[in-house]
Amino acid sequence: MTSVIGRSVTRWDTLGKVTGSAVYAGDVALPGLLHGKIKRSTVAHARIRAIDAARALALPGVRAVLTHADVPRVLHYGSPHPRSASVTKDQYILDTTVRYHGEGVAAVAADSEEIAEAALELITVDYEPLPALLTVADALAPGAPAIHAVGPGGNLVLDPVVVTRGDVAAGFAAADLVVEGTYTLGRPVPAYMEPNVCVCQWDALGKLTIWTSTQSPFMVRGTLAEVLGLPLTKVRVLVDHMGGGFGAKQDLFQHEFLCALLAQRTGRPVRMEFSRKETFLGGRTRHSGSIRLKQGFRRDGTITAREAEIVFDSGAYGSHGPGVTAVATASLTSLYRCDNVHLVGRCVYTNTPIAGAFRGYGVVQSYYALDSQMDEAAEQLGLDPAALKLMNAVRDGDLAPSGHPIVGHGLEDCIRRGLEETGWAARRAAPKSHDAGRRRRGWGMGCEMHGSSAYPGIKEQGNAIVRMNEDGTVTLFTGTTGLGTGAHTALAQITAEELGVRFEDVAVVHGDTDVVPWDIGAFASHTTYMAGRACQMAAAQVKAKVLARAADRLEVAADDLDIRDGVVTVRGVPGLSLTVADAIAAERGIPAPQLVGEGSYRPTKSYSFAAHFVEVEVDTETGQIDVVQVVPVHEIGKVIHPVAAAGQIEGGIQQGIGHTLTEDFRVDPRDGRPLNASFVDYKMPLAMDMPPIRTIILETAPDEGGPFGAKGVGEDPIIAIGPAIANAVHDAIGVRFRHYPITPEQVLAALAEKGATPTLCAADQHDQTDP
Amino acid sequence: MTSVIGRSVTRWDTLGKVTGSAVYAGDVALPGLLHGKIKRSTVAHARIRAIDAARALALPGVRAVLTHADVPRVLHYGSPHPRSASVTKDQYILDTTVRYHGEGVAAVAADSEEIAEAALELITVDYEPLPALLTVADALAPGAPAIHAVGPGGNLVLDPVVVTRGDVAAGFAAADLVVEGTYTLGRPVPAYMEPNVCVCQWDALGKLTIWTSTQSPFMVRGTLAEVLGLPLTKVRVLVDHMGGGFGAKQDLFQHEFLCALLAQRTGRPVRMEFSRKETFLGGRTRHSGSIRLKQGFRRDGTITAREAEIVFDSGAYGSHGPGVTAVATASLTSLYRCDNVHLVGRCVYTNTPIAGAFRGYGVVQSYYALDSQMDEAAEQLGLDPAALKLMNAVRDGDLAPSGHPIVGHGLEDCIRRGLEETGWAARRAAPKSHDAGRRRRGWGMGCEMHGSSAYPGIKEQGNAIVRMNEDGTVTLFTGTTGLGTGAHTALAQITAEELGVRFEDVAVVHGDTDVVPWDIGAFASHTTYMAGRACQMAAAQVKAKVLARAADRLEVAADDLDIRDGVVTVRGVPGLSLTVADAIAAERGIPAPQLVGEGSYRPTKSYSFAAHFVEVEVDTETGQIDVVQVVPVHEIGKVIHPVAAAGQIEGGIQQGIGHTLTEDFRVDPRDGRPLNASFVDYKMPLAMDMPPIRTIILETAPDEGGPFGAKGVGEDPIIAIGPAIANAVHDAIGVRFRHYPITPEQVLAALAEKGATPTLCAADQHDQTDP
Repeated sequence: MTSVIGRSVTRWDTLGKVTGSAVYAGDVALPGLLHGKIKRSTVAHARIRAIDAARALALPGVRAVLTHADVPRVLHYGSPHPRSASVTKDQYILDTTVRYHGEGVAAVAADSEEIAEAALELITVDYEPLPALLTVADALAPGAPAIHAVGPGGNLVLDPVVVTRGDVAAGFAAADLVVEGTYTLGRPVPAYMEPNVCVCQWDALGKLTIWTSTQSPFMVRGTLAEVLGLPLTKVRVLVDHMGGGFGAKQDLFQHEFLCALLAQRTGRPVRMEFSRKETFLGGRTRHSGSIRLKQGFRRDGTITAREAEIVFDSGAYGSHGPGVTAVATASLTSLYRCDNVHLVGRCVYTNTPIAGAFRGYGVVQSYYALDSQMDEAAEQLGLDPAALKLMNAVRDGDLAPSGHPIVGHGLEDCIRRGLEETGWAARRAAPKSHDAGRRRRGWGMGCEMHGSSAYPGIKEQGNAIVRMNEDGTVTLFTGTTGLGTGAHTALAQITAEELGVRFEDVAVVHGDTDVVPWDIGAFASHTTYMAGRACQMAAAQVKAKVLARAADRLEVAADDLDIRDGVVTVRGVPGLSLTVADAIAAERGIPAPQLVGEGSYRPTKSYSFAAHFVEVEVDTETGQIDVVQVVPVHEIGKVIHPVAAAGQIEGGIQQGIGHTLTEDFRVDPRDGRPLNASFVDYKMPLAMDMPPIRTIILETAPDEGGPFGAKGVGEDPIIAIGPAIANAVHDAIGVRFRHYPITPEQVLAALAEKGATPTLCAADQHDQTDP
Repeated sequence: MTSVIGRSVTRWDTLGKVTGSAVYAGDVALPGLLHGKIKRSTVAHARIRAIDAARALALPGVRAVLTHADVPRVLHYGSPHPRSASVTKDQYILDTTVRYHGEGVAAVAADSEEIAEAALELITVDYEPLPALLTVADALAPGAPAIHAVGPGGNLVLDPVVVTRGDVAAGFAAADLVVEGTYTLGRPVPAYMEPNVCVCQWDALGKLTIWTSTQSPFMVRGTLAEVLGLPLTKVRVLVDHMGGGFGAKQDLFQHEFLCALLAQRTGRPVRMEFSRKETFLGGRTRHSGSIRLKQGFRRDGTITAREAEIVFDSGAYGSHGPGVTAVATASLTSLYRCDNVHLVGRCVYTNTPIAGAFRGYGVVQSYYALDSQMDEAAEQLGLDPAALKLMNAVRDGDLAPSGHPIVGHGLEDCIRRGLEETGWAARRAAPKSHDAGRRRRGWGMGCEMHGSSAYPGIKEQGNAIVRMNEDGTVTLFTGTTGLGTGAHTALAQITAEELGVRFEDVAVVHGDTDVVPWDIGAFASHTTYMAGRACQMAAAQVKAKVLARAADRLEVAADDLDIRDGVVTVRGVPGLSLTVADAIAAERGIPAPQLVGEGSYRPTKSYSFAAHFVEVEVDTETGQIDVVQVVPVHEIGKVIHPVAAAGQIEGGIQQGIGHTLTEDFRVDPRDGRPLNASFVDYKMPLAMDMPPIRTIILETAPDEGGPFGAKGVGEDPIIAIGPAIANAVHDAIGVRFRHYPITPEQVLAALAEKGATPTLCAADQHDQTDP
């Protein structure tokens, strides 16, 4: 049989997407559908003295208005991972206090979106202002008012995360060179194409059905059931297609609770969809903040000590702050080997939009600092930064940030392959002038490692059920979500391969919590790795049942049989075979047993690696940085679907370029008002901005826990691209930027300070502010 | 724990039904929905020379027209039980020959039903008439033209079914009395409240979804896939609620194929719903025909020989003719013991509407003859008919018609209990005049036995999957269909009982072939018995997993644990317990395994029994027979849901009263034109016609194969009521009717012949003809 693993078969989800027949949550049309809208706070921090909804309720076509007085006062996990140490329980559906400009304070259901919006204008809110703490510094200042009653106090989301190994003082004492810097982090947003949207309907028996754009349907089910006081059998979450989530859609959002409650109150289905502006206000951002990083080096490049102080801005609620802080902090134990580390991570409430889970989950931030500083150190040590990184790269047997041992030499393999592919040595050897010409080019490289699967301490487990139909075709039941990554196709490939049937003969049932096995959700780069292995286990069970039946028919031992392309063959006996369908057909009145298999897989943590090599061109007159080419080299174990894997890598790079050069969701430092909550003012790289990308995928360190050796790739590509660009910019113009995004203004300012200032071209000035 | 078995909990399906929120196939509303209609033959037998659809196609709003030239020419099983000996493969979707008045010859899809109906009128069909064989006698006459090219010839649907045991000639030679009669059978229709209806939609990937009112979704899936040339993964059959089927909706009907093809051709969803008239023309009837029955008796009542010749009218197609004929024939080996039997069953094609599966499946007919003749023999032997039946009743260890041994003395128990309850002996002893008064009352009784499960030789197997959710609630996956009987409630009760959780905590997923385990369909009185046992097996697997987990937590042996009401308790250690939810919660980061169990049950055959005791009143002036009271005594093993079981019994009695007294779908003997294809002219007993029914359910012979000892009850109640009424009529007026329905005209005619003729009251005359 030609293996289907490693073949870029046509994905299940593409035809529906290109023909427009794919059904997203927002496409659900139900008779009697009402439209819900959320009234949002216009102040950053205040107590609500009163809300008057009478005029809104009197508007013809308005069916219901909800304020804090009308909803269950249940403190819930903003993120639907109950009992996880990664998330906080600090949100009410609607509260009597608003904690950031844009927070929902009331909701309306009406016959049309227009009426609902008009009704919002008729709701008056009497705010009693509270001091707005718009920065981490404000929030941590002595005497600052507490934004939340819960938590450890001092506006901390959680007690500081401290990771210590070895003896840092001794390490620094042993150093020939100490490099220290503080890296500041912008606030990118996930900017998924499909805005948050849901439709809720209750049936006569009091069961809630919600179609919603979520990465974690079972988590939505669990949280809604808990908050609404329902058993899990009374909440059904449906997700067919999704237009991206990037981690943020692991959270439950205000509109999902409010939509359910509006539907309950009105007795009619209700639809709520975020405007693009609301995806900024009501969504989740990456954690901004700062990382003070200090490392000691021997002259030969050996790292003797590492000390870091991370301070993340959580915004108004905790969401994944604890998890992101913990992961970011722990990640600095690794990537580049160091025996003596002392790392402290803090996460701080402020009166700004909520930071949450976002592809890269803390590691984007920490490795931006780490990998930038490695280049700084290399320069001061007179070493090639790539050589410095290679000599320090984690390798087989080293402890990963999770505490699990690294398998294989994946990071070294990535670096070496990239050096070859880019002719790095020759490029570094070439003479370079940082002061010649308007357009200056430079090369940089960055590294990363990222775990497939996360959340030790909660129920992380991949599950699958595989059923063979009477004609030998196969149905796979998976709780994983089709985020847009092609995951279901990969799972079908794994199932087909293990079972020995054709890929085309495997159908996938997904997206309905009533019928598919429990799944934690599509995030943490674990779907193919964890759920894929569960599929493989389930398929193996079905295969054993088929073979037992075939063995009876063929009168041979099951051990001598195999299945290829849907045909059972006998090893060593050419010509003796029967189709799977014939093997399972009823014979002499005796039907085949129910051909169902189940797989349940609890992963350890497996790490993927990458090194990104980037060439940039800096226009010294405009300050514009263009990424000229990218050579990403990824080690992700066995590749199931090369085109889908490459798509992940390209998309991650695009998003990473945006983070590094243009994307930053900003609030007015005076009052917390969002300044650029639109695609007009929030700048993302578009397709036409993309450089050529020559993706190289290695399969040098397969993971024995993954299906056919596969590991994750979802988050990896967004991590290394950032420091690679910053390092390339330094290579091009000799300026080190210790922050992202690196804007043209900053480039020009830095060049001016460096004394090589071209005239600022006014026409190229952009400020990311609301018009 | 209070057992939920035997408790009449609130059924899952009732609230939706009474509030109108229950979704039937006909309720499915899709954007762009087209409406399909079938043009039906106006002749009983003809070749189609030509069909002209041009004018129909030109009608604005008409989207497609299909004739025999446009559809796959595949001979298919009218009934979706491929490879079963019970059904024939003699139908095309649309053929070039029409075989009865009302057969579909073309189909239209249009923007509205009105346009579709107008288009039907614009289609012209040029028929070349063939001789119409409207009776079995015509069809069997030497030289009669063949209605079908397939089959054994001579217009037989199948070779005669012959069952012989012992030595019949010797048996008759040993008889003191030989009783012989020919019993003729009307043609009732199932008259389900929900007409046949389906909605078909194809997706971009070539997958067909069909919402249809069927008893056998997986059989629909298999047959559509076969005829349309699709793998099973490309056909999805959805059935939520159903408004009855009574066996007939085991078949695939023309509209289901045509709707799928119209949807394919137009690229839009299409809905087709039978008018009430079409449920007669395009539906299925019970097999009419005749049964010549001859039995020999010793003076003491012992039956020495039994000989029967069954001739069933199959109508234009075979459908379940083979199965019904085989079951009817075999059934005469039993009920009343007889060592010497010779039974022949024939099934004959005629140019009349199609007979198919119908509650009672041949046994209604055969036991009408047998149980009537037992009364005739009793009279001639000078015995109480009940005593004669009791002495001959089958009992523990006797061979059932299926060849399986009878378990227990269920039939004797039913008869004895009925005799007690009705004070039978006293009634029989009371003096009776057949000639006194206008309104005369009489008592009769009839018996029956019926198997739970059927179809030996095909894949009969009950399957279930049970999953426990994170909060300890349970989801049951079943492929059984919710015909209206409350089956899903019973299955949830069985699951709850076995697992030890509350009934309210079990949700049922059903009605979607993509997601539920394979099921043969809801018929043959086997759902609770066969699927119920599979549920019990699946629940037991989940229970074992929960107990293993709980044993770890409580540090006791799993064998010492039990679950009651969702709480795990330790035998002999009061106070030590934990909830199921706590038992399965993740602990120290280790989640519970996937809590899924599966059950697959292949039944042997289990028999239920009943004796019905009936009092009638005959109005000798009008000929009207009123059923005054019924005392049905059923032995059905352990009763899961008493109210649902009683509902089955009451409904069966109502339907049986109709069969026996009023219901007969007739065609014009001249040309085969249907005479009473409407509820105006086809008379069924309504609620107000129903007598008091005092249902008694025994649990004296539980079946060890059934869940908690349960057996079937679906078909039983329609069988014994018929002969009980006929026997009661004889008791009331001294006239023996050897046919059904027994109409007022016939009563009056018989009384006139008997010489006790009151004046015929013209106002009471009804003839069942079209107006």
